[in-house]
Amino acid sequence: MPNHLFEKEKLHLVVFTPSGKRGRFAEGTPVLEAARILGVDIDSVCGGRGICGRCQVNLTVGEFAKHGVVSRETSLSPFAVGEEKFKARRGLADGRRLSCHAQLMGDVIIDVPPSSQVHRQVIVKKADDRKIEMDPAIRLHFVQVQEPDMHNPTGDFERLELALNQQWGLTELECDLRTLQALQKNLREGNWNVTVSVHRNKRITKIWPGFHNRAYGLAVDVGSTTIAMHLCDLSSGEVVASSGMMNPQIRYGEDLMSRVSYIMMNPGGDKLLTEAVRQGINELIGEVTELAGINPTDILNAVFVGNPIMHHLLLGIDPTELGGAPFALTTNSSMTIWASELGLTSNPDGRVYFLPCIAGHVGADTAAVILSEAPHLQRQVTLIVDVGTNAEIVVGNSDRLLAASSPTGPAFEGAQISCGQRAAAGAIERVRIDPETLEPRFKVIGSDLWSDEEGFDEETAKSGITGICGSGIIEVVAEMYLSGILSVDGVIDGSLAAKSPRIVADGRTFSYVIRDGESELKIYQTDVRAIQLAKAALYAGAKLLMDKFGVDSVDRILLTGAFGSHIDTKYAMVLGMIPDCNLKNVHGVGNAAGVGARIALLNNKSRTEIEEVVKTVEKIETAVEPKFQDYFVDAMAIPHKTASYPNLSKTVKFPDPKIISANELSGSGGRRRRRRLK
Amino acid sequence: MPNHLFEKEKLHLVVFTPSGKRGRFAEGTPVLEAARILGVDIDSVCGGRGICGRCQVNLTVGEFAKHGVVSRETSLSPFAVGEEKFKARRGLADGRRLSCHAQLMGDVIIDVPPSSQVHRQVIVKKADDRKIEMDPAIRLHFVQVQEPDMHNPTGDFERLELALNQQWGLTELECDLRTLQALQKNLREGNWNVTVSVHRNKRITKIWPGFHNRAYGLAVDVGSTTIAMHLCDLSSGEVVASSGMMNPQIRYGEDLMSRVSYIMMNPGGDKLLTEAVRQGINELIGEVTELAGINPTDILNAVFVGNPIMHHLLLGIDPTELGGAPFALTTNSSMTIWASELGLTSNPDGRVYFLPCIAGHVGADTAAVILSEAPHLQRQVTLIVDVGTNAEIVVGNSDRLLAASSPTGPAFEGAQISCGQRAAAGAIERVRIDPETLEPRFKVIGSDLWSDEEGFDEETAKSGITGICGSGIIEVVAEMYLSGILSVDGVIDGSLAAKSPRIVADGRTFSYVIRDGESELKIYQTDVRAIQLAKAALYAGAKLLMDKFGVDSVDRILLTGAFGSHIDTKYAMVLGMIPDCNLKNVHGVGNAAGVGARIALLNNKSRTEIEEVVKTVEKIETAVEPKFQDYFVDAMAIPHKTASYPNLSKTVKFPDPKIISANELSGSGGRRRRRRLK
Repeated sequence: MPNHLFEKEKLHLVVFTPSGKRGRFAEGTPVLEAARILGVDIDSVCGGRGICGRCQVNLTVGEFAKHGVVSRETSLSPFAVGEEKFKARRGLADGRRLSCHAQLMGDVIIDVPPSSQVHRQVIVKKADDRKIEMDPAIRLHFVQVQEPDMHNPTGDFERLELALNQQWGLTELECDLRTLQALQKNLREGNWNVTVSVHRNKRITKIWPGFHNRAYGLAVDVGSTTIAMHLCDLSSGEVVASSGMMNPQIRYGEDLMSRVSYIMMNPGGDKLLTEAVRQGINELIGEVTELAGINPTDILNAVFVGNPIMHHLLLGIDPTELGGAPFALTTNSSMTIWASELGLTSNPDGRVYFLPCIAGHVGADTAAVILSEAPHLQRQVTLIVDVGTNAEIVVGNSDRLLAASSPTGPAFEGAQISCGQRAAAGAIERVRIDPETLEPRFKVIGSDLWSDEEGFDEETAKSGITGICGSGIIEVVAEMYLSGILSVDGVIDGSLAAKSPRIVADGRTFSYVIRDGESELKIYQTDVRAIQLAKAALYAGAKLLMDKFGVDSVDRILLTGAFGSHIDTKYAMVLGMIPDCNLKNVHGVGNAAGVGARIALLNNKSRTEIEEVVKTVEKIETAVEPKFQDYFVDAMAIPHKTASYPNLSKTVKFPDPKIISANELSGSGGRRRRRRLK
Repeated sequence: MPNHLFEKEKLHLVVFTPSGKRGRFAEGTPVLEAARILGVDIDSVCGGRGICGRCQVNLTVGEFAKHGVVSRETSLSPFAVGEEKFKARRGLADGRRLSCHAQLMGDVIIDVPPSSQVHRQVIVKKADDRKIEMDPAIRLHFVQVQEPDMHNPTGDFERLELALNQQWGLTELECDLRTLQALQKNLREGNWNVTVSVHRNKRITKIWPGFHNRAYGLAVDVGSTTIAMHLCDLSSGEVVASSGMMNPQIRYGEDLMSRVSYIMMNPGGDKLLTEAVRQGINELIGEVTELAGINPTDILNAVFVGNPIMHHLLLGIDPTELGGAPFALTTNSSMTIWASELGLTSNPDGRVYFLPCIAGHVGADTAAVILSEAPHLQRQVTLIVDVGTNAEIVVGNSDRLLAASSPTGPAFEGAQISCGQRAAAGAIERVRIDPETLEPRFKVIGSDLWSDEEGFDEETAKSGITGICGSGIIEVVAEMYLSGILSVDGVIDGSLAAKSPRIVADGRTFSYVIRDGESELKIYQTDVRAIQLAKAALYAGAKLLMDKFGVDSVDRILLTGAFGSHIDTKYAMVLGMIPDCNLKNVHGVGNAAGVGARIALLNNKSRTEIEEVVKTVEKIETAVEPKFQDYFVDAMAIPHKTASYPNLSKTVKFPDPKIISANELSGSGGRRRRRRLK
């Protein structure tokens, strides 16, 4: 183009920060239009009508040699009527302009604040500052629709489609019947202006008369014990309300297998469990929408994660097949269905996304954990353990990922432990044992004091000291080992009864009294056994995957699940739940499955990502791996029969290994020999 | 390939008739496999397992110089065990072989009977031998699914997909949640053999354990007066049962506009009308499935046609907007939805197809008429008239199609006529008037005799003679004109009262007594006026479209709709309902909309065809066409004020045009002048 044309047209240079994108535009070009043409990411729902206020920008004034621009106050058109109106109605911070109204009048630097970017970064996990890019499946679009015309008798829907095509570039849209049924009323109520929500640029899921600015989504982790729900604003990515509840299915069985048994024994039981979990979810929807003060019909998208049995039951699929070998899933693929198909009280045409399952015991929750912790994006080898009734285990890095589940049983959750209880006020959660006196001290949920500190009795008077929760059991068993009460094989050393009143005979075996008096709490030999079985299963599963992956040790270990996050990682390692690792690289990562659900909710591409990753995950079935049994037996010892713990040894002083043979323990009479290994 | 290889492998020539496709295959190749490779159309549900019997062929024996083949009994392998079993179970006609079991042993001629072809021709209309190719949207596929394997923990659905891919070449299949919910049970019940129905090669809509051979579809014409349903076998294309009923919406209003009024006056009334029509359809489903002895869940596909108001109400869309200008449709596109979305009692996952609407008054029924009569495939210009409360009119040929509706009102259906009634026993349907004596004779529904024939009184004694139905009114008015009772302007000539007692004064106008005595039946001047208004609207609409198309006459005229089919085309033309045309080319074509629905049901491609055609149809809105009014006024005369009827004149002797001016008629007193034009 010859230069004089440039002069004639008065082209101005605009530089957008932080992207650095730049271009020349004719005088009078709206900033938003320039941004569109240059591919600068600026949000808009109203399409440049000064209604939504999403497209706010800052004019940066000054001389910028770097950009070759002198940017002045006068480089943009004066405040427009539309901007005044918006300011009066909704407020507009000093210096902010609506980029749809501000026009180029000179060379200018325009700063796009993060809040005006569609694809802004949002933090999904404060702990490690995990950020993701906003890219929700649902977008809102305000459109002006042509009125019907007898000379061109197209349907209202076809004119809406045309408007969405002309004003937003959307093509080949689909629409649910329910949306069609309300279409004519909405168009006329909005005087031919409506806002539509579009799912994945493809399907219209809701229409509001006039301008509508609110779109929300749910991220839901359906655990067998608890259901956790986050209500997220689909434009800011913020969690606007959260709530959780016990899974109402608990009345049909504490753990997964007892629920499956219930279903197998009671024809139609699956329907009751499906109804229970759906009702629970609807209760939570009621709670979070009330907390946030929004209408449930503004919930347009939801992501659900859960283990295979929760996944199937929520979908209304009988999980009986998952209760026994070969543990066949109905489907392992991701799914997108209507909220109405689950009977949710959110917008019935909202789309509900289920992450893919990995195997019969490794569910969409594990897929979500992978999405959250991203082991597939790292060179270092990660071991992820989701500790629960079944432990789900993932090992790998950017080369390969392997996954398995291991049948730990519910011991880690306090079940099968004589004084075990849920993590609630009154439960012992931390334990230390003096290796000399064998006297314990402990902490109880609800108090920050140790039991030997002043004021402890007062602080715990109300709750009482009612039992030991999962993390407390890990610690007490580990401390019993560290203090020499337990042999390498996990036998309580009865000879110590002579030394301490804490060791007491209990039939043919011995117990450790953690609390005496009226409400006595004892750790029995059978309790230690239950923990050994559980931790051996966990270790053996991890070992099997490491084996398949071809490593003897991993670079980092992540413990997830509500319980995994509360374990003191050191004690988990002392007990030999997990292999040796630099303790700096062993972390509890909280409800990673919930974070993964949130990522899938806020970032559309992450769904494709996890679907692809799950396809490549190598599934190992521990039950059919011949080596698993050997690994399991070796892992019964504390911390392990053969594996060394060089990293842990730097932090923890292990006792001299004490061996009390199982024969002696289970043999007749009270004959017990003790050996000390050199 | 070198020749010796041919010899080594013993290749045999196979020629398929009637297609003529030929090729050489190794000895032992199953005939079905050879057919597949050559692209010969042979049906199969079981995939070559000798279960379904759909792949039967005939061995043609003899020497065929034309094909260069000597085809012998021994050219196919002997009767296989699988064929014996099939014959014992289901029977097999002499000479028939199962092509999946019969193997090539020599050069051979194989005849594929029509019943073994997927894409066989079926007759959808006996009248003109209209044939279509079978290509239903639903296909059944029998598959053997791999059992689950812990080493490769894919979901049951994914293994079903794999089987459908490997055994039937289907890819990227989708599946409804309801189907998933029943999947595991069906797979195990069928011992990993299942039959699936697949909609448009894309979506699994039903799974049966084991082998299943039955798939049915519905073609339904939802008229404002009657609903007609055909149950079709989706493999043979045959109608296995039909039923019809009055549209139960009639209790909310006889005609369309009174139903829309009801809805406008009664909030929520649209829901009542939706429920009424859906209940009616479900009743019909009950009837046709009982008649055919099949399970409603074997109904996997349905096609609905209806005018825009019926279309909207069936879909649960409030039709209020269609009750007034600008007559905006909610959508004019075709739709495919779930049967469950309409609450149908057929298979809930069955797909329901709605043909596209053309304009606010020209509905999916007219689209179906076009599909049935195919004016767009012919060089000659066709005028199609669907006579009802509104007349839908189509004019065109393979170059262009134009469509409009014209507000005829319900006169043609007997409403607004003093002695009008529905076409039921006792209604006068044929009338002749002696031009000399002005005496009438007539025929009544329920009897084949004319009223002046012996036995007529006995035959009609039971029903009585209760009124005149639509076709009777056309004839009596036309005959009144032909016999000189009516003037060109439609005025009953009172001067004839002197000549015949049949002409009687009736206030300021005159009537014609068609039946005297106790149950007198009279044609009043107002009745003639109502018919004139209706026929003028119809003619004006047709004329407008012919005008737009650029012709003064058409090559053929088709009258459709329940009533249109009963009209004597000659009288319709005498009356000037339709323009002049060679009577040989004027036909009543019955319920063409129903035939169109059946075509769309049986032939998938026809859906795409009609969708494309409808997009190109030029929609004319008579209400906003300035010429329409002039055409209407001119068409009030009988047969027409200006248009000549050269073709009709060859068959019918028109009376000398008689003019009684409207002034005289409506003027004060009894002054009437008569003029005879030269």
